[in-house]
Amino acid sequence: MSTPAAAAEPANLMEAVVSLAKRRGFVFQSSEIYGGLNGFFDYGPMGVELKKNIRDCWWNDMVRRRDDIVGIETSIIMHPKVWEASGHVAGFSDPLVDCKVSKNRYRADQLFFAPVVIDGTTHGYVSALESEKTTEDLQAAAELFKRKKAITGTLSPVVVKDFTEATADEVTKIPSPATGNPDLTPPRAFNMMFQTNVGAMTDASSVAYLRPETAQGMFVDFKNVVDTTRVKLPFGIAQTGKSFRNEITPRNFIFRSREFEQMEMEFFIHEDDDWAKWHRYWINWCKDWLLSIGLPESHISEYDHLKEKLAFYSKGTTDIMFKFPFGVQELWGIAARGNYDLTQHANASGKPQEIFDEATKKKFVPHVIEPAVGLDRIFLAVLASCYAEEQVTDEKGNTETRTVLRLSPRIAPLKIAVLPLIKNKEQLVARAQALYAKLKRKYACFYDETGNIGKRYRRQDEVGTPYCVTIDFDTIEKEGDTFTLRERDSMSQRRVTETELFALLEEQVY
Amino acid sequence: MSTPAAAAEPANLMEAVVSLAKRRGFVFQSSEIYGGLNGFFDYGPMGVELKKNIRDCWWNDMVRRRDDIVGIETSIIMHPKVWEASGHVAGFSDPLVDCKVSKNRYRADQLFFAPVVIDGTTHGYVSALESEKTTEDLQAAAELFKRKKAITGTLSPVVVKDFTEATADEVTKIPSPATGNPDLTPPRAFNMMFQTNVGAMTDASSVAYLRPETAQGMFVDFKNVVDTTRVKLPFGIAQTGKSFRNEITPRNFIFRSREFEQMEMEFFIHEDDDWAKWHRYWINWCKDWLLSIGLPESHISEYDHLKEKLAFYSKGTTDIMFKFPFGVQELWGIAARGNYDLTQHANASGKPQEIFDEATKKKFVPHVIEPAVGLDRIFLAVLASCYAEEQVTDEKGNTETRTVLRLSPRIAPLKIAVLPLIKNKEQLVARAQALYAKLKRKYACFYDETGNIGKRYRRQDEVGTPYCVTIDFDTIEKEGDTFTLRERDSMSQRRVTETELFALLEEQVY
Repeated sequence: MSTPAAAAEPANLMEAVVSLAKRRGFVFQSSEIYGGLNGFFDYGPMGVELKKNIRDCWWNDMVRRRDDIVGIETSIIMHPKVWEASGHVAGFSDPLVDCKVSKNRYRADQLFFAPVVIDGTTHGYVSALESEKTTEDLQAAAELFKRKKAITGTLSPVVVKDFTEATADEVTKIPSPATGNPDLTPPRAFNMMFQTNVGAMTDASSVAYLRPETAQGMFVDFKNVVDTTRVKLPFGIAQTGKSFRNEITPRNFIFRSREFEQMEMEFFIHEDDDWAKWHRYWINWCKDWLLSIGLPESHISEYDHLKEKLAFYSKGTTDIMFKFPFGVQELWGIAARGNYDLTQHANASGKPQEIFDEATKKKFVPHVIEPAVGLDRIFLAVLASCYAEEQVTDEKGNTETRTVLRLSPRIAPLKIAVLPLIKNKEQLVARAQALYAKLKRKYACFYDETGNIGKRYRRQDEVGTPYCVTIDFDTIEKEGDTFTLRERDSMSQRRVTETELFALLEEQVY
Repeated sequence: MSTPAAAAEPANLMEAVVSLAKRRGFVFQSSEIYGGLNGFFDYGPMGVELKKNIRDCWWNDMVRRRDDIVGIETSIIMHPKVWEASGHVAGFSDPLVDCKVSKNRYRADQLFFAPVVIDGTTHGYVSALESEKTTEDLQAAAELFKRKKAITGTLSPVVVKDFTEATADEVTKIPSPATGNPDLTPPRAFNMMFQTNVGAMTDASSVAYLRPETAQGMFVDFKNVVDTTRVKLPFGIAQTGKSFRNEITPRNFIFRSREFEQMEMEFFIHEDDDWAKWHRYWINWCKDWLLSIGLPESHISEYDHLKEKLAFYSKGTTDIMFKFPFGVQELWGIAARGNYDLTQHANASGKPQEIFDEATKKKFVPHVIEPAVGLDRIFLAVLASCYAEEQVTDEKGNTETRTVLRLSPRIAPLKIAVLPLIKNKEQLVARAQALYAKLKRKYACFYDETGNIGKRYRRQDEVGTPYCVTIDFDTIEKEGDTFTLRERDSMSQRRVTETELFALLEEQVY
């Protein structure tokens, strides 16, 4: 039996995770044989199971196991008026900057600049694209600028701004990162919704959009849900599904892509109810849920959006942040949106979106708390935080590195692998096959009889299979019909009966 | 206890199904508050569960419970070259006809006409849109034509053609159904793929399409799957997901919509393998699977596509047909596509899509059998064939109509309802709540204490809940902790223990 030493993060965790994701069939580049398509990804045989398990856990915990939340599934293409009412047609845009010479295009908020100030006088500008070390980069660029222009005097520390803060005068002086010359245009708004046309006409009357969020589906179907179920306030409507955003700079693997899957829930409360209480309730629920699927508490934090940066209707937004390999980033946003969305749709459609209050005999538009999370982001958070490379020592004292994904049994693509100790012993293989058939009716599992048992364990470790069960000579020769159960994380082994095995899985996989 | 009489189909089954679907939250029109969007639908609280259950049954049976099939999930927007190689850019089109005056647009193959022949001479033309009685309609129109024009002589029986068969001369004479005058254009090809643009540029270089089928994802990722798993021929790659077709005439509710969900599998076989054997294997598998989720065998038939109508590469296609309320229509297509798709992608990408054959030491491109089905169509087939209105008689001899959805426990949105006999008996409610909490961890279920028990049964009948369990005075007063289990279809009642109840569900819900 081998024993693991303390796990160590590899030097470049992100690279290791992306490499594993490709090598073991978790994530592929979309259309890879055609050179890929920037911002689009496919999920391979392991990835699709992991993704489905995360989605199903969310669905079961958020919808099926609760009395106060119902699910729906709305279409990706909705009536264009939905996006006018929601504000997405007018306001869902990124400020973009063009380089007139190179034709490169930049997001203004990701293009940074600083004046080169020497002895109090501005001599020119330096620019840089967003990186982890923007300030250091621009300081170095300013020093280079000073040296090249042979200006004497004392260079001030750079004061970094992004291009959305550039004055008209500065726009004409800031160098394009592509050419080094001031070839940039002022920022202009670029709508991030993908546009298409429905029907045989291709004109303004047929324009439609791919939804940039699933949330509006819950608002637009609000009355239908109220009228066809027996929900009573407070209650929620939830859905999972694809959304699309035409990001100019998709990046960090599946963290920010153009096609992604959301899991959103709109929790409707009485207008007089304590929104802050419910806001806190859902922040806590979401954090607990992340722990329940195996994310480490140490990686999770909260960020409250600044009051002055909120939309006028917003009462408050808190993001659950996660420590990704590329920094602490937003994972799950919990927004208190007042009754803005329902009111917008009531005004735009002419159909009241109200609920009758038995207590006060008045009608009112419910308020809403919205926990919204990206499934692909959770997937990446899981992969990155469960990935480990460990030095393990076997009983002979040999040391090797094992790669292990410490996935929770709830979401692991394979729950268990069934391994006959050797493949040329008929009785042993027959017992293994019988167990495998029985397990497979209920659980995703894998049968493997190829290679030595240690190698087979390693293959399962790498894709996060929490348990391996080995059918060995004791199984067929001794009484009790027991197997060797090997646990992935501790690498410990013990003997179990079939009944004990099923009871373990029943408890762990839910 | 009530007893059901023989079930009767309502006079207008389709109308009854659509009404139930709306009333009980199965299917809503998309963006209904904005007047809807033709060809797009939403799934409500009951519908989303039914749809998810059908999808999960397919996934479990097709992927997880088999050793020879793996799943993937590819992006909806793929590289545009995928659709050039697959032939969709050039060939995935409907022939459309415009009425120059009304601006109406028709699918040429759904626009019918016939010459009005009197005593052997053609005097003019009549036209009609597709309906179940096209021939009768056109015969009547021809008679009307003859009367109006006051032509004497014998009218020949009409010979109906569709507009794709119209000669150039006939195009100038056939009346538009909208105006009655010959205002129609010749048919022209209209590509059914939804088009969009990726990135900040909106020009030819950024054109992309919403996939019109999920199948190409399996072909494009073929090598990635082979390289990252241990699949050996014959093996399959499967996925479920949304596809989009810009149908000119979406119709029959969710049968033909513009956004729909597919469940497709590509089964790759050796080039020398017996394709006809595998074709038959998959036709049988699909039929058996439809039975396993509760579709009636009486509604299922097969249709072999005519050899002369097949694409040049096709070896054969068989459709599993289903008796929908609007006629017998295609449900599941099982196509033997040779090695056409992989070869096309190999040629277009320059990347060989071959497998090495250990036996012959040669490389070859595998052939494929493709069972492709629409999830929304199965959903409709289920609703329509499980819907019944029955006359039931209670013990007092009173007769009433009950609406019942005879859904298989495998796919029913709710597996069981927990009903305390009365709600003002604390002990009874507590026992019911305890059972409900335990059931809810594993199964979608519903707790209902409102109204008399008969009404509560009816509410569950209408949404297809196979079992109701009533916690009554015998539960709390007699020994054994038993409940009344009521079965939906037979309406029979018997006493069961909690253990028996869980065993029943474990057996029925898989």
